[in-house]
Order: sequence, then C-alpha cells, then structure tokens
Amino acid sequence: MAAAVLVCDWGSTSLRAWTLDAAGKVVAQQRFPLGVNRLAPGEAARRFDDEVRPALGAEALPALLCGAIGSNVGWRTAPYIDCPTALDDIARSLFAVRDDVWIAPGLRCEGLGGACDVLRGEETKALGWLALNPGDRSGRRLVCQPGTHSKWLVIEDGRIVRFLSAFTGELFAVLSEHSILRNDGDASDPEAFEAGLAAAGDGDALLNRLYTARSRVAGGGAASGSTASYLSGLLIGAEVAATPRLLGLEGDPVRLLGDKPACDRYALALGLRGVAARHADGEAAVLAGLTAIARLRGLL
Amino acid sequence: MAAAVLVCDWGSTSLRAWTLDAAGKVVAQQRFPLGVNRLAPGEAARRFDDEVRPALGAEALPALLCGAIGSNVGWRTAPYIDCPTALDDIARSLFAVRDDVWIAPGLRCEGLGGACDVLRGEETKALGWLALNPGDRSGRRLVCQPGTHSKWLVIEDGRIVRFLSAFTGELFAVLSEHSILRNDGDASDPEAFEAGLAAAGDGDALLNRLYTARSRVAGGGAASGSTASYLSGLLIGAEVAATPRLLGLEGDPVRLLGDKPACDRYALALGLRGVAARHADGEAAVLAGLTAIARLRGLL
Repeated sequence: MAAAVLVCDWGSTSLRAWTLDAAGKVVAQQRFPLGVNRLAPGEAARRFDDEVRPALGAEALPALLCGAIGSNVGWRTAPYIDCPTALDDIARSLFAVRDDVWIAPGLRCEGLGGACDVLRGEETKALGWLALNPGDRSGRRLVCQPGTHSKWLVIEDGRIVRFLSAFTGELFAVLSEHSILRNDGDASDPEAFEAGLAAAGDGDALLNRLYTARSRVAGGGAASGSTASYLSGLLIGAEVAATPRLLGLEGDPVRLLGDKPACDRYALALGLRGVAARHADGEAAVLAGLTAIARLRGLL
Repeated sequence: MAAAVLVCDWGSTSLRAWTLDAAGKVVAQQRFPLGVNRLAPGEAARRFDDEVRPALGAEALPALLCGAIGSNVGWRTAPYIDCPTALDDIARSLFAVRDDVWIAPGLRCEGLGGACDVLRGEETKALGWLALNPGDRSGRRLVCQPGTHSKWLVIEDGRIVRFLSAFTGELFAVLSEHSILRNDGDASDPEAFEAGLAAAGDGDALLNRLYTARSRVAGGGAASGSTASYLSGLLIGAEVAATPRLLGLEGDPVRLLGDKPACDRYALALGLRGVAARHADGEAAVLAGLTAIARLRGLL
C-alpha cells in the first residue's frame, strides 16, 4: 500500500523517521544524524525538506513530529500542555508549523518545590508503550525513560498524571568529558559500576559523594580507568534512590523504556534496592505513539 | 633584612609566592599564572627555576611549597599523611623534591561510606588561620574553604581531625560552560541566586533539582540569563545543607576561609539555614601556615 503519512521522533541527538501506509504499517524508515543539538538555528525546516522527505519518498505526505524539535532550539516552539494527559489530549493539541506538518506538544506539570517540570517526546513514547500493552492501561504505572535528561512518568488509568526529570545523563557526559573525572576508561567495568551504585547512598549529599570519584583514585589506589563506570553507577544509583521517593512511589515496580544497555544499568541499580524493573523497547513505543496520534488526528 | 626562604601556595589555577626574611617578614611577593592545571607534565620544575625563582630574586633560597603541586599532576607526588594532623606533623612530613625544595604532604582521612577523602593545600591554610587566631586553638572549629573542590575541616584543639570534600566549584564550572545550562548571564543576579538556594532543599535529590535550572526557563518563563546565579545558589545551597550534617555538626558556626566574594555566597546560604558564619582571608592564612611550617622546619 502507498505511504500515507511521515512520522518522526526528532530528538536532541538524532531523528528517526518512518512512513506509514493507511493501515499504519511501516513502508520505509531511516535514521538521520540531525538531532536538534546539531542544527544551526533556523536550519530544521530546510534539512527536513532537503534530506528527510526525499530520503523516504515523502515529499508530498503530511508529517507528524515529536520530541525536542518542538523546543526553543528546534523548528518552532510547540506550547506545552499540562498534565494529566492522555493520547487524545496530545492529538487535539498538535502544533502546526505548516499546513501539513504538525509537532506534538510537550508536557508540563508541577515539579519540585513548586517549580514546573517539562518534557518533550517522552509523552509519545510512554503513551505508545501503553498502546502496545493494553493490560497496562488500568491502574498505576511508574515508567522511567533513561536519557540525557531522564524522565519518570506516573501513569494512572492510561493518563500521564505527573512526572519528574533528572539531569543524570547530561551530568555524566559533561563530567566524563570536561572535568577532572575525565579519563580513558570505558564505561564497562562492572565492578566499578557496582561500587558507584553502593557509593550513591540514598541519593543525598551528591556533591560530597561525587568527590569520592576523585579521591578513590587520588588517595585510595583505584585505577583511573575505572572512573567512568564508577561515576555512572554513582549517578544512576543516586537517581533511582531519590526519584521514586520524591514521587511517593518508593518500591513500585518500574517499567524501563529505552535502549537496552542503558535500561539494563537502571535495572541493576533498581534491583539492588529491591525494586522490580522490566524493559520495553523505546523505538517500538515511540512509533506506536506516533501511529496512534496520526490515527486519532485522521491522518491514517 | 635579606630573604631567607621562598614559600609558595601552588594550586590548581595559580601560584602565589613570597620570600621571607629570617624574622618571617615578607620581603617580596608575586602571583604567577602557573597553576598545575595549566602546566604540561614535567614542566613544573623548569618553570619554577626559570620564572618563579628569578622574579623574586630567590635563586639560591630554600623553598617550601604546598598545594596541588604535590599531586600526581604537579611536580612530584608528595605522599598523604593521615588525620588527625597538627602543624608539626606537616613540618615533620615534608617531601623533598630536591635538596632545598620541599612540598607539604596532603591529608587523607576516612570519608563517606568507608571511602577515603583527600586534600592538598587546605591543611596549610586552615592551620595558618589557627596560627593567626590563638583563641581558636582550643575547642572544636568547623572550617569551610570554598573552591574548585570545597573542603570542610573539623579542627579539635589545634588538630585537623577529619574533613569532607564537595565537588561544588568544579560542577558549577563544567555545567556553566559545557551543558544546556550554559548561557550568557553573569553570576550576579541576587534574586536568582536566592531562588537557587531555596530550590536546594536539604541537599537531597540533586539530580532532580538540577533539572529545575532548565525547566524554570523552558517551562516557567524565567530569564535564561539568570541561570548561572540560580545554579550557583542551588549547588552552594545543597553543599551547605548536606555537608555539616554528614559531619554530625549541623548548626555549628562555620569559619569561611578564602576569597571574600565566594565566602559571602556561602555565608548567605548558611545564614538562611540559621547557621552563623564568619570570614577570614585565605591568602593571609596560607602565608601564616607556610611561615609556621618553615619555622618549625628550621628554615627561619
């Protein structure tokens, strides 16, 4: 069947595009190194027209995008909508950057201490996961999406009722690249990773605990090549200790949504705290979310 | 009187040198942009001979150094000594890199969760402050030295009995320069600084709280130029909330030792938590410490 719509998960670091036929079946798909962090201001529309559309034979198709492309560093800012949010709220609130190109809104909710919290893209992934798993649509679910900024979403009876972000992925990246903790080790020293998890405590006093990544080498004789793994464990351990508690859901089983290697690290951290965790594929989830929104919007 | 000894506080970012006469009076002084972070491996000795000594007319003087110059990225590694430590322990444990050049040892103590903690240079500054303030030599004192890595020292009856480090300064620097939180604002928006202090909570859940520095701009309408001040408040607030508690000294008055502007930010953060704080000049303190060690060692 001919393609009917182009859907894209357009995030900070990459763009994943699919064309779908009228039945929602994938006709073509491709990944592009066009994450919004790599784009110059104002460049998104041109790269979309010149590269993404032609590569998929989608010059004339309506298009639905989600993710950081709707932020102030993306194509244009798609306004946030407030939680609680279900799939049809998203479909109703698409932001038209052109007559035939829509961006899904980001979500906003009350965060820590009266501050607001925001996300973009994770709503489509989480609700897409629900679309794939009808059995999870009733009751409460705690979904964690590891990433540059991890997102923990509380879903009740099919609606995202609140969420909480953590700066973990970006903090690991900047410390590994630009601080005294940078080194030539890779992030695959399981023993150092578990030592980092143990050093995370209850997620308190992170500034003090961070220094142990330096002092264990400078004064404790640990190999400097193990610093990345230790740091990864320390940060993930701190995140999984603190975040469910802040949400009042300590001990709730966690659905991990995303790339398998990252989710495995979180599952290990949660397991050591006695929390059950199960992984689901992030790409399948976001595709299901985009497909469902396109269908609700009458594009399929 | 002629100069008798050359003493240097040689840290990560700069080198401060003084020549002293036999009575301990300063003959000459100079600051050099030769912090060990800016030196190539193996370069310290040559720069010392070619630039520091001649600039102060100190070619033939014995020299005493303290600080990061004794670390693995300095001249040579001066072994750590374990707490508790008094001034004469330091003087007894100088590390000779040449017949007439000594480096003060760093200190090591038990840190968080059985890890070790380390410092270099802060011992000389803290004990020098004590040398200048005889009234503080009995009883317990909590001394905080803000910096790239802040150090909180517990002093009892003139001896450093333990200490705890925090990664605060370096974390602020790498986030301000290399993360999504970088921006063109300066760090002098008092309102944003205090909002950051308030957002620090009890120093828990820092990964989640860090994200509010992003979401208050992206979703809350705060000016992006205020991010640096907010971040500074958030990190300092988290440090002053967590560290005294970890040391079991919550509520103890704090002596802040270092540059006035940095210490003022810490004093504000402590004051909001009801903790009394008093500032003392860091440069005068480290000079007094180096002078006292030189005297104990018979160089004066």
